[in-house]
Amino acid sequence: MQVKSAGNTTLNYGSVDVGEHVLGGGNYLQKLMDVEAALARVQAKLGVIPQEAAEEITRKAHVDLLDIAEYERQMVLTGHPLVCLIRVYKDVCEGKHGEFIHYGATTQDIMDTALMLQLKEVWGVVERKVEKVLALLKDLAIRYRSLVCMGRTNDQQALPITLGFRFAGWYDELTRDLDRMKSAEKRIFVGQFGGAVGTLASLGEVGVRVRDGLMQELGLEIPVIAWYASRDRLVEYVTDLTMVVTTLARIGNEIYINSKTEVGELTEGFKAGKVGSSTMPHKRNPFIAGTLSGYGKIARSSIVDMLSVMDATNERDCRTLFVEAYPVENISKLADAALDVTVGLLSGLEVHEDAITRNLHCMGGLVFAEALMIRLAGELGRLEAHEMIYQLAQKAIGEGLNFRTLLLNDQVIGQRITAEELDRIMDPKGYIGLSEYFVDVTVGK
Amino acid sequence: MQVKSAGNTTLNYGSVDVGEHVLGGGNYLQKLMDVEAALARVQAKLGVIPQEAAEEITRKAHVDLLDIAEYERQMVLTGHPLVCLIRVYKDVCEGKHGEFIHYGATTQDIMDTALMLQLKEVWGVVERKVEKVLALLKDLAIRYRSLVCMGRTNDQQALPITLGFRFAGWYDELTRDLDRMKSAEKRIFVGQFGGAVGTLASLGEVGVRVRDGLMQELGLEIPVIAWYASRDRLVEYVTDLTMVVTTLARIGNEIYINSKTEVGELTEGFKAGKVGSSTMPHKRNPFIAGTLSGYGKIARSSIVDMLSVMDATNERDCRTLFVEAYPVENISKLADAALDVTVGLLSGLEVHEDAITRNLHCMGGLVFAEALMIRLAGELGRLEAHEMIYQLAQKAIGEGLNFRTLLLNDQVIGQRITAEELDRIMDPKGYIGLSEYFVDVTVGK
Amino acid sequence: MQVKSAGNTTLNYGSVDVGEHVLGGGNYLQKLMDVEAALARVQAKLGVIPQEAAEEITRKAHVDLLDIAEYERQMVLTGHPLVCLIRVYKDVCEGKHGEFIHYGATTQDIMDTALMLQLKEVWGVVERKVEKVLALLKDLAIRYRSLVCMGRTNDQQALPITLGFRFAGWYDELTRDLDRMKSAEKRIFVGQFGGAVGTLASLGEVGVRVRDGLMQELGLEIPVIAWYASRDRLVEYVTDLTMVVTTLARIGNEIYINSKTEVGELTEGFKAGKVGSSTMPHKRNPFIAGTLSGYGKIARSSIVDMLSVMDATNERDCRTLFVEAYPVENISKLADAALDVTVGLLSGLEVHEDAITRNLHCMGGLVFAEALMIRLAGELGRLEAHEMIYQLAQKAIGEGLNFRTLLLNDQVIGQRITAEELDRIMDPKGYIGLSEYFVDVTVGK
Amino acid sequence: MQVKSAGNTTLNYGSVDVGEHVLGGGNYLQKLMDVEAALARVQAKLGVIPQEAAEEITRKAHVDLLDIAEYERQMVLTGHPLVCLIRVYKDVCEGKHGEFIHYGATTQDIMDTALMLQLKEVWGVVERKVEKVLALLKDLAIRYRSLVCMGRTNDQQALPITLGFRFAGWYDELTRDLDRMKSAEKRIFVGQFGGAVGTLASLGEVGVRVRDGLMQELGLEIPVIAWYASRDRLVEYVTDLTMVVTTLARIGNEIYINSKTEVGELTEGFKAGKVGSSTMPHKRNPFIAGTLSGYGKIARSSIVDMLSVMDATNERDCRTLFVEAYPVENISKLADAALDVTVGLLSGLEVHEDAITRNLHCMGGLVFAEALMIRLAGELGRLEAHEMIYQLAQKAIGEGLNFRTLLLNDQVIGQRITAEELDRIMDPKGYIGLSEYFVDVTVGK
Repeated sequence: MQVKSAGNTTLNYGSVDVGEHVLGGGNYLQKLMDVEAALARVQAKLGVIPQEAAEEITRKAHVDLLDIAEYERQMVLTGHPLVCLIRVYKDVCEGKHGEFIHYGATTQDIMDTALMLQLKEVWGVVERKVEKVLALLKDLAIRYRSLVCMGRTNDQQALPITLGFRFAGWYDELTRDLDRMKSAEKRIFVGQFGGAVGTLASLGEVGVRVRDGLMQELGLEIPVIAWYASRDRLVEYVTDLTMVVTTLARIGNEIYINSKTEVGELTEGFKAGKVGSSTMPHKRNPFIAGTLSGYGKIARSSIVDMLSVMDATNERDCRTLFVEAYPVENISKLADAALDVTVGLLSGLEVHEDAITRNLHCMGGLVFAEALMIRLAGELGRLEAHEMIYQLAQKAIGEGLNFRTLLLNDQVIGQRITAEELDRIMDPKGYIGLSEYFVDVTVGK
Repeated sequence: MQVKSAGNTTLNYGSVDVGEHVLGGGNYLQKLMDVEAALARVQAKLGVIPQEAAEEITRKAHVDLLDIAEYERQMVLTGHPLVCLIRVYKDVCEGKHGEFIHYGATTQDIMDTALMLQLKEVWGVVERKVEKVLALLKDLAIRYRSLVCMGRTNDQQALPITLGFRFAGWYDELTRDLDRMKSAEKRIFVGQFGGAVGTLASLGEVGVRVRDGLMQELGLEIPVIAWYASRDRLVEYVTDLTMVVTTLARIGNEIYINSKTEVGELTEGFKAGKVGSSTMPHKRNPFIAGTLSGYGKIARSSIVDMLSVMDATNERDCRTLFVEAYPVENISKLADAALDVTVGLLSGLEVHEDAITRNLHCMGGLVFAEALMIRLAGELGRLEAHEMIYQLAQKAIGEGLNFRTLLLNDQVIGQRITAEELDRIMDPKGYIGLSEYFVDVTVGK
Repeated sequence: MQVKSAGNTTLNYGSVDVGEHVLGGGNYLQKLMDVEAALARVQAKLGVIPQEAAEEITRKAHVDLLDIAEYERQMVLTGHPLVCLIRVYKDVCEGKHGEFIHYGATTQDIMDTALMLQLKEVWGVVERKVEKVLALLKDLAIRYRSLVCMGRTNDQQALPITLGFRFAGWYDELTRDLDRMKSAEKRIFVGQFGGAVGTLASLGEVGVRVRDGLMQELGLEIPVIAWYASRDRLVEYVTDLTMVVTTLARIGNEIYINSKTEVGELTEGFKAGKVGSSTMPHKRNPFIAGTLSGYGKIARSSIVDMLSVMDATNERDCRTLFVEAYPVENISKLADAALDVTVGLLSGLEVHEDAITRNLHCMGGLVFAEALMIRLAGELGRLEAHEMIYQLAQKAIGEGLNFRTLLLNDQVIGQRITAEELDRIMDPKGYIGLSEYFVDVTVGK
Repeated sequence: MQVKSAGNTTLNYGSVDVGEHVLGGGNYLQKLMDVEAALARVQAKLGVIPQEAAEEITRKAHVDLLDIAEYERQMVLTGHPLVCLIRVYKDVCEGKHGEFIHYGATTQDIMDTALMLQLKEVWGVVERKVEKVLALLKDLAIRYRSLVCMGRTNDQQALPITLGFRFAGWYDELTRDLDRMKSAEKRIFVGQFGGAVGTLASLGEVGVRVRDGLMQELGLEIPVIAWYASRDRLVEYVTDLTMVVTTLARIGNEIYINSKTEVGELTEGFKAGKVGSSTMPHKRNPFIAGTLSGYGKIARSSIVDMLSVMDATNERDCRTLFVEAYPVENISKLADAALDVTVGLLSGLEVHEDAITRNLHCMGGLVFAEALMIRLAGELGRLEAHEMIYQLAQKAIGEGLNFRTLLLNDQVIGQRITAEELDRIMDPKGYIGLSEYFVDVTVGK
């Protein structure tokens, strides 16, 4: 019995635009046929095969025309992933034209090139969605450019920042992920055409021109030399997508932990009817943020897998070719799904200004210890000032005393700072530094 | 368009008995209902809920009775993975009986317990198939118990062994994998029942008896304390299956490298019509062995993923719960598929005695250097003998000379060993040591 | 310039009892000599070598007697990790006795067996320290058996528990890690003795008795068949230690997040003079808990490495043997260091009852929604009650209203529950369920 | 007892130029001081601190001047990795000048910036050595540009290539690794300067100018916004080095498997005196190639670790900062060591032309099946020709018959191809395709 939305997982992560659409069987066969057809056209142009053959091969290059049942039979019979397709493809071509399909090519040429066409489609989907997330983050950074909130290091309150400043940091990281993708494109999306072992022996001199024409026809880069056993391009593909997922997962985790009851500053959107718990009616659970955070935890395995299969031997090695598809497909779907989740999460993000304000004051001014130290550094020296404030701050924490009172009662400090100046120093708005400036330079205005 | 056998992968690895059958949506819903029904029976027995309710809940505990369309609607509406099931389950129960489904339980209790029921089914499938592979290996070890072949260390010919001896080594490792599984069962397959945070607050004293009865009913172990945030059991599950796949992959790799043209000792079965290459008609490729070897390369990522999600916080953490299903499902399918591939590979394995014999002699007696050293150690001392043979052996290799001739012409050695004794020493059959004994003690007779 | 405590890392993680002490070069050479000496004794007993030779070899089996400078020279000259030792070991033996060192053995026999002796020492250290941590956790669980604190799921306040109950959960997980170690010991700590390819060809029939005697002498298990290319035992070693580190890291992370300023329930011990930040005098940073949490993040790579090297070929494969030491050593040191950090962390742990109490009340009674639902379930039906409380709870959260007031003003609920009963329901102490019972059954009394 | 070259490992992989030299404690302290001194100079130039202070701080910025014993004491006392250095650094500065060390900076600014300086040094070492390996590969490709040898796919003989062609493929992959490094440099080597939470609150407006001046002074890129919790740069650093190691490991593995006794085409250099086995005098083991191959198996864990620590929270998170140094240091040393091993391996590589020639002919002409098919495709059609040759080739393999004879005796083929033409077709030299052309375009001439 098929129950789509139940089951532990579908190992699809809910990818809508990449899963079946780009990486499904139908599109894969189509891409294989696209490559074979382009090859025929180029070979016809160079006089390697008849022009009419190329035209017929191109005309029939549609997966919908194939006899899929026969294809599956041939798959079982031949045990070969491409020969079975060529046989049914040939069958739909009129006359003897089909004989010229796959002329002088080796299976791996067609499969690697088709794979690259698929992955380039995935890349496009991912880039487009990364830009969407960037736009959302930019909006958030600008909207909360000046909302003062507490900055935290090591889970301890540190100094005030603005919320937009934090969002700008997320934006900055994702910008780099995109930059990495763009700078890698020409290195990654390279076709394959070298014949059985890469020497183009079956085609001879014309082979190089066939190769170049084929890649131009398909919009892929031309390889310097065959890369059947040299799969670093796919590692880079996997790595760059992994980085995207990891960044998104960090965002998911940030929202998750900032939705903690005692913090309560950010929560994912709540829709009436949504049930947090089957037994606790009050629960609002950060399931979306949690899912996104979790995706980051499992994203890194694709790169382990992909690196594992890089040690292909000699001119080609099926121990690696048969399995590299798993990590490639896995991270592709995960990236697509994580991007969709992020768009949903950021679109519905709720910012709780009341909680933000409450948390700004919960340490009773202790977070302004640095500001005080800086204020006193001129008169007392920086290390001296640090030591003095350190003693009072630790006393306040350790004995549960009021920091402000301790400061005003201190002989050295009380003489130098009035209550009024202290209140000014302890105003969060006055100590956000260049938070707003950094928002502006990071996301633009 | 849905093309089953094309597509890059289905992320299913071709698992037949575990994929959809055990881990699919249908069986998952069924297991959830099994747990809810067992819970109702136990609660009725203890007087917590009415007996008739338990009977009706049990009667309707069949996934086929559910309105799946409504289930999917509720899934979208509630965003909750269990509440949606309870709602449609309740609907098929007559009267108010359905109100007593999930009484005093928390979602995680039902989901974790149902997961354990599923995984126990997987475990059974895997154990059964491991035993099948062990039987095949035992047969091979016995059949080739005395077939002398070359032993190799570091890819260099070392000393003769028997082929059965090598097979016995594979058998031995897999035996340990099975032993590991058996010794882990009681630790792994433990149900969950603790209420919202594990304290059984909603049920009170009777909760412990409900828990114990439920586990007894379902054939699972009783937990000492709730383990919502303590997922080491699943890590052990993943680890043990990973070990099985890794052992099988080693077998696949061994067959792959021993089918190398220049070695040619073992090949996977060949079926007329099978096509090795679209362009090279002579090719017979080790695609089955290669696939199995490849599975080993990607098996290890599940454990990385699973360890990643072990750091759950406080009493429960959806960042880990939502994603642990991926590695668990992944390794389950991979183990099932790898076992099937192995059964096929070993069943059809072809042993080429001609190649084995040819390879035994290709180093011109150099592999008997150790035997010679042992023979001379008594008279010359072990290190002295090693040094003397070492010089002659390296001379033979370095200058392409005949080792036997060098030995007989050597002043010291030629005086001590006759040509006849040398031929005896250089007979592979005479230097297989206890190969056959080790076959016998390892696989039994 | 050597600055011990600076440097990015020493890749030692601060392991005191395992790093240099057990896994350092000195102890490794000693273990190799222990094996060679035990071998000589056994061989003498069986008449394979002279008794006096065995006695002299045993007498000189101390690393301190070796000419280490000469050893290092031989290492460079031979490029062989054991031959260099045998040469200098032989030199310190009187007469020709040294000739009988390593008689009929292959390098791997000695190295694998010595490795097992080392790892068994590590295992002992780890087991002892795990028991120390268990004792600390037991103390904590008992001390805080009844201290009511908030239980949290998905970072949201859920229901009250006792702090001892949480500690008991940590204890329970670590108990399983120890159980796993104990049940694996006999499978892991097995010696090696098979000669060049495992057939004992150079020793013949007596070889089996030599092997058995050797293992008995060294306190290791006897292998059924040689395991030069079958390294699953080391994977299990790595896995079991990884689990220990992962559990400890979860504890570290729990303390880290519970020390968050806004939560403040647990903090690592603070020592006057400790500096949290070079610029913020008020900072008390959870550096110890953070370190421990971090150890968990990097612990999982050892198992990836170790699984990677499991696919050894034929009878032995240096591609794996040379590198398996890295993951084995890495996780050994990490486990030792993590255990020490945990002992320090738990010994100094500070429990802040004021913060715990404050947090119990910060949701204004909303966490008792389940208790209310249970109370009303009898009269209204469970799903009905859940729905009703759900509406009021979500209204309170969404509109910032007082949950208690909403309840009392509600037509249906207000009629059924008085203010007094509501206060009783909303008393955290009254809803900790069997927290204390679970402490008792988990850690004992 | 300290025995350097024994011990299981030193977790240093034998890195000479990166291990202690770049990543050791001494250089780390020096880099921290370099950053503090540069900061002082820039701040003096901008009027933030006195000019004389900056001069004195710069004058004393040498690790050799420090009281290391006092440093270690302060490390224990403060438990803070930088404050202890500042204290002893201040002590060696005359007068009150030392007070201005670390002015307005946060620890993480100095540590991250110093780390970047160190890693840039590593990067330089790696790039230089990669270029050395490329030069060696280029030489090999040119030297063996025309040496015909067998190409293999899936460990089966496929078609002839030239040995130079294979070397060119390795060269091509490594070129991409270097390209990847170069294109990443500006993204990776970025300094840090943002104060406690990145807002430059303690310095105000002038902070941005201080930051820019500091990076210019140190030769690092200027960050757009603080990246304390955004560590993707380090992931890219680790990834790019991992790719280098993985490529080198593939080369090591290729040499390892091609040195297999039955293949014997390539072997690592042999030096008289080198001992392959303690018991088998004839053994020449590929220990260098095996080590290199093994490095690739354990290289991938650094990236797992590094990705694990990317999910830092809020403005900074010591759970990740404390541990990221391990993967960073690990892969740095591994890359350095793997490069040295590769240089040694390629420098001493021995090419055995006799074995290469022998292997070219071991399949009795079967490898020319493709050439025959191409020859007949014109007359018979490609699929027809494939089928016909396929039948004869499989018959030859299956029944152990001579392929050439089968062809000449075949009715259809025998009529079309003469014995002379067949010999021409079956001449390996005649079917290397564009092997030499690809050498030329890949490595240049």
